Amino acid sequence: MAEHLSQSELDYPFKLLEYINGFRVSQVIFSACDLGVFDLFLRSPTPLSAEAVARELGASEGGTERLLDVLAGFHILEVEVVEGKALYSGTDVSNLYLSKAGAKSLYDMIVYFSQTIYPLWGSLADAIRERKNEHETNIESEDLFKAAYRSDEEMLKFMGFMNSTWVIDGHDVVTAFDLSPFNTIIILGGCSGALAREVTREYPAATVTVLDSSAVLQAAREHFLQADDTIQFQEGDFCAGEIPPADLYVLPRIIHDWKEDMVVQLLQKIHGSCKPGGGILIVEALLFENKRGPVTTQIFSLNMLVQTGGQEHPPSHYCRMMATAGFHGVQVRRTGKCYDAILGIK
Amino acid sequence: MAEHLSQSELDYPFKLLEYINGFRVSQVIFSACDLGVFDLFLRSPTPLSAEAVARELGASEGGTERLLDVLAGFHILEVEVVEGKALYSGTDVSNLYLSKAGAKSLYDMIVYFSQTIYPLWGSLADAIRERKNEHETNIESEDLFKAAYRSDEEMLKFMGFMNSTWVIDGHDVVTAFDLSPFNTIIILGGCSGALAREVTREYPAATVTVLDSSAVLQAAREHFLQADDTIQFQEGDFCAGEIPPADLYVLPRIIHDWKEDMVVQLLQKIHGSCKPGGGILIVEALLFENKRGPVTTQIFSLNMLVQTGGQEHPPSHYCRMMATAGFHGVQVRRTGKCYDAILGIK
Repeated sequence: MAEHLSQSELDYPFKLLEYINGFRVSQVIFSACDLGVFDLFLRSPTPLSAEAVARELGASEGGTERLLDVLAGFHILEVEVVEGKALYSGTDVSNLYLSKAGAKSLYDMIVYFSQTIYPLWGSLADAIRERKNEHETNIESEDLFKAAYRSDEEMLKFMGFMNSTWVIDGHDVVTAFDLSPFNTIIILGGCSGALAREVTREYPAATVTVLDSSAVLQAAREHFLQADDTIQFQEGDFCAGEIPPADLYVLPRIIHDWKEDMVVQLLQKIHGSCKPGGGILIVEALLFENKRGPVTTQIFSLNMLVQTGGQEHPPSHYCRMMATAGFHGVQVRRTGKCYDAILGIK
Repeated sequence: MAEHLSQSELDYPFKLLEYINGFRVSQVIFSACDLGVFDLFLRSPTPLSAEAVARELGASEGGTERLLDVLAGFHILEVEVVEGKALYSGTDVSNLYLSKAGAKSLYDMIVYFSQTIYPLWGSLADAIRERKNEHETNIESEDLFKAAYRSDEEMLKFMGFMNSTWVIDGHDVVTAFDLSPFNTIIILGGCSGALAREVTREYPAATVTVLDSSAVLQAAREHFLQADDTIQFQEGDFCAGEIPPADLYVLPRIIHDWKEDMVVQLLQKIHGSCKPGGGILIVEALLFENKRGPVTTQIFSLNMLVQTGGQEHPPSHYCRMMATAGFHGVQVRRTGKCYDAILGIK
């Protein structure tokens, strides 16, 4: 990209225009999900005209046609012309990821992005202006979750977002290391149970428990539990309360929210409860050691600034804290997707 | 892209994640412009640390560092590590396009996108839901400009946006055809004068006049006029009032706002004022004839829905109206950039 930006970009700013139009691309997908476009195509046995889609969704024909045309331009929908009329249909990609019922549905992530994150990022410049130092901007976990869980509706949206994340990234994260030596596995802050489900699928012999607050667990049971789930749920507060004994503790996107001294305290407490030979698996989006990438993680780190006050780190940050807490043999595995894994042994 | 989306995308939705994160990429650029990052690097004779940038901009060091790192990730800034400290500097691309003073500055476009268009696109789904037919959503030009020009500040932002557009696209548009046979050229709705300036540069023998409202012309003189400009300004309303005689009339992004019958009426009026052998140059972003692209233009067309009620069209739409109004020998030239040109002769 450097080459591209420095040479042809000087003739015409194609890439910059793509960047500054990125929000429109996002909103095309957000709006189509909101209107139910992909669910309609998943249900429909035949291709549909813009007129038919507009009628089914209760939307304007002109607006619907333009939306469908952009989605076809992105190759998210297919279009064919039959007797002079454009007929649209879903694709494997839209069925899998963008319909609510898709096996790897990103629908809840998209709702969260659209309703919560898009407006928040409208204040990015203000968040950067805030004259707080690194330390001050790292807020306490309690405040963070007070914001994310400020209403039942907002909590459910956040859980849906986390759920989507593990539906697409969970498999890579739980197979980054061979976890079969661990018989009892606790997911601290396991939320909707999506990551726990991936663990049970990959390691069916293990007993897998989600530890989270009663409100979260109730919502997980009501909205996210699947009929064939073998996940255990245990109410608890791993910050203030006891941590039950186990062979492996998984911390999915927990550590990045907190100040270093708090993290070390938590890791020491986990070390105390951990069975000998057991371990800890930290799941985070890892920056490169020099912080020069990956871009996705750099953007996550800005998101933490906007949304929570936390930030993303390179592997050494986590390794150092794990070592301080008494874990040894720390190993880092990058998945090449959004989230990576770090394993330490007691 | 079809191949990509249908095959590897089913393994992991890299492209979809890029799309739904597009708004964050936009906001990274918007915020950096807002904070004055690129202006600072343009002024600075040496590379700067995140600490120094934060101090100069009155922003937080942590937030500034993360922003600079993403911009380096995009290769919009450069970074080098000197004695363990990251030092950032501007690039030819950031100096040219993203600083306020850059010769092809997109700064005003970015301000307009950030402050006006980004919030508007938060309601895209609602705009599509509106149960109006094509005809009804095409509002009158008066209403459209009442919205865009609802305050002096908003008018100036809109003019800045249009100005940036012609700074990067103007040259291609005015050289799509050889306009040297035309001695007197009037830009109808010529706004800040940026497109007129491109005409005077390419055809120095021609007399080039911007026709627009007195408020717009006053703002053009105050904020956009350059010392060596040879542009004429003429106050007028080409819809309600007289159209002065000329050899060539240029209509930059005017027609796409309006209903067909109004456009034909306007084109007929222009035909009446046009000198024999003269012509009309329509400048618009052209859809493909089957409306399947270009994606940029498809997105512009959705933008018209959100912002004005107008829409983009394929070439045949404009050619038909030009022929109805009496123009002949109509030719279409695509530039491969954002805006295209259609020339018709009286």
